[in-house]
Amino acid sequence: MDLTNHQFRLAARPVGLLKDSDWSYTEEPVGEPGDGEVLVRIQFISLDPAMRGWVNEGRSYIPPVGIGEVMRALAAGEVIASNHPEVAVGDHVTGLLGVQEYAIAHGGAVTKVDISLAPLPVHLGALGMPGMTAYFGLLDIGRPQEGETVVVSGAAGAVGGVAGQIARLKGARVVGIAGGPEKCRYVVEELGFDAAIDYKAQDVSAGLGEHCPKGIDVYFDNVGGEILDAALVHLARHARVVICGAISQYNATGPTGLNAMKGPSNYMSLLVNHASMTGFVVTDYLDRYAEGAREMGGWLAAGKLKTREDIAEGFETFPATLLRLFSGENTGKLVLKVADA
Amino acid sequence: MDLTNHQFRLAARPVGLLKDSDWSYTEEPVGEPGDGEVLVRIQFISLDPAMRGWVNEGRSYIPPVGIGEVMRALAAGEVIASNHPEVAVGDHVTGLLGVQEYAIAHGGAVTKVDISLAPLPVHLGALGMPGMTAYFGLLDIGRPQEGETVVVSGAAGAVGGVAGQIARLKGARVVGIAGGPEKCRYVVEELGFDAAIDYKAQDVSAGLGEHCPKGIDVYFDNVGGEILDAALVHLARHARVVICGAISQYNATGPTGLNAMKGPSNYMSLLVNHASMTGFVVTDYLDRYAEGAREMGGWLAAGKLKTREDIAEGFETFPATLLRLFSGENTGKLVLKVADA
Repeated sequence: MDLTNHQFRLAARPVGLLKDSDWSYTEEPVGEPGDGEVLVRIQFISLDPAMRGWVNEGRSYIPPVGIGEVMRALAAGEVIASNHPEVAVGDHVTGLLGVQEYAIAHGGAVTKVDISLAPLPVHLGALGMPGMTAYFGLLDIGRPQEGETVVVSGAAGAVGGVAGQIARLKGARVVGIAGGPEKCRYVVEELGFDAAIDYKAQDVSAGLGEHCPKGIDVYFDNVGGEILDAALVHLARHARVVICGAISQYNATGPTGLNAMKGPSNYMSLLVNHASMTGFVVTDYLDRYAEGAREMGGWLAAGKLKTREDIAEGFETFPATLLRLFSGENTGKLVLKVADA
Repeated sequence: MDLTNHQFRLAARPVGLLKDSDWSYTEEPVGEPGDGEVLVRIQFISLDPAMRGWVNEGRSYIPPVGIGEVMRALAAGEVIASNHPEVAVGDHVTGLLGVQEYAIAHGGAVTKVDISLAPLPVHLGALGMPGMTAYFGLLDIGRPQEGETVVVSGAAGAVGGVAGQIARLKGARVVGIAGGPEKCRYVVEELGFDAAIDYKAQDVSAGLGEHCPKGIDVYFDNVGGEILDAALVHLARHARVVICGAISQYNATGPTGLNAMKGPSNYMSLLVNHASMTGFVVTDYLDRYAEGAREMGGWLAAGKLKTREDIAEGFETFPATLLRLFSGENTGKLVLKVADA
């Protein structure tokens, strides 16, 4: 095959907000898959807040991306060559395929997906990592009970939108927090949340007081910062705070200084309310993905779960498109379309 | 009876560190106990970090002390008059008797204590509220397993010293954090902790790295602030952080500004490690006090639990003596002796 691959590689260890100079754009011929490997033509690259963490140095749940390496990313595409007995040419797969146009991966490291159930980008969203994140974080850690009040930040995002819908399916009253009237409308009218608070226009604490008169039983947090602090003030007794992310803080430059990581100063609300704050990453639940995918697929097929994909186009826009996550511009799952089907 | 009572009353809503002008010193005749009431001659007043919270305005687990009211405090003394069938003159009791020399309370609101098991001040310490705090916080929330690593801050204090000893009794390896060489010596040599870190002389994070090579499984926090942040860096997978107190932050003046409440900026360690942070107050466990008192009493009688009381003298020193808690001067349970036996 005479195919050319393009890639974004990490060029420097980023400080604060990602810059163009943190990336290098490379071109190389596509290689041949080895024994047990498959060659995937990538159609969609998933852009996820976690990617900001993957380029930081230091101990985390996953090793950092090395300087010079192809940027790590989940992606979806079509198999165009296979040396693996269980993956065939024409199969659609997802996996950690990287920010590139073609990827060679071991056949056992990709997941075959059914595009008759949902279009390919949905397998990077509600049926992929963000969906599993919402499912296990909400149900295993948040454990909402019927009639309880659940608050979700980043409610118009890929994870928050699903988390809130699952909470509703489990009989909870759900309040979303999102930025701007359009996102708030989307969350209430399309996703079916009971209420939404526009953090750009309203005082979040006042809004929570109004919409959660009996306090918050489960707070599913994607954003951290001042919104987390506002939610802590309104916890009910025995509340569960699920720490799923902290996108407002991912570009903090260190423990001190003007742009320091902000911890939740109202954390003593945990003491007063006998409440807990528990973190997780979705890979903690790898051994239960099949369970989550089955239930989520069922809800999707039954029309009980709405999804939206925010599809940007053009491989070369990757550095700028990724930044949309941190400026809060996307609604639903942000993916980068790299090639047509 | 022609007895005179002296009292410290809250004179102003304090801001930051407590000042002399926040208190008024009053004198009045001792009244007669009414139906079902007892009159207690107070011998020891318990000085506890929680008292700083009780004088703050606003929602908490207990209503704030009102301006003009006798300051709330646990105390121990001898019954000198009784109109309650189950409490006799000569009984020793503890209860929320206030910062005063004599108290009238309902007989059902005081707890009879056995001074043949331990001297009266111990019933305000290891066998009282601080002991129950350590017992339930460590065992119900921290849940240390044999061979796990437990770290306790405020390790030379009334709660921390007991929490660490209970962790040892349950087979954990225990590291204390305390201020100064004398407290560290006390924690290791007298209380039997495996190691101690002097936060005034050592880098706490480096010390934790050295003494907890496999990470911290249970962190029992009494202090908050930078020490909590250092501990978060060293959490093991599935660690449990017990939020018992935050004495370094109790005199913070608000959510922002130079003397603001400091939240744990490293709380994303909860996410990376699938760890939890859970708060509690001891009154959450009122219905299980008998269980705690029985087990703690057994350990004390068997010599398995060491206690130390730091006894200050002189009722009129109350405002200054209370401040010793916040400057870290006391070792063990701080009590104010008000009268001889």
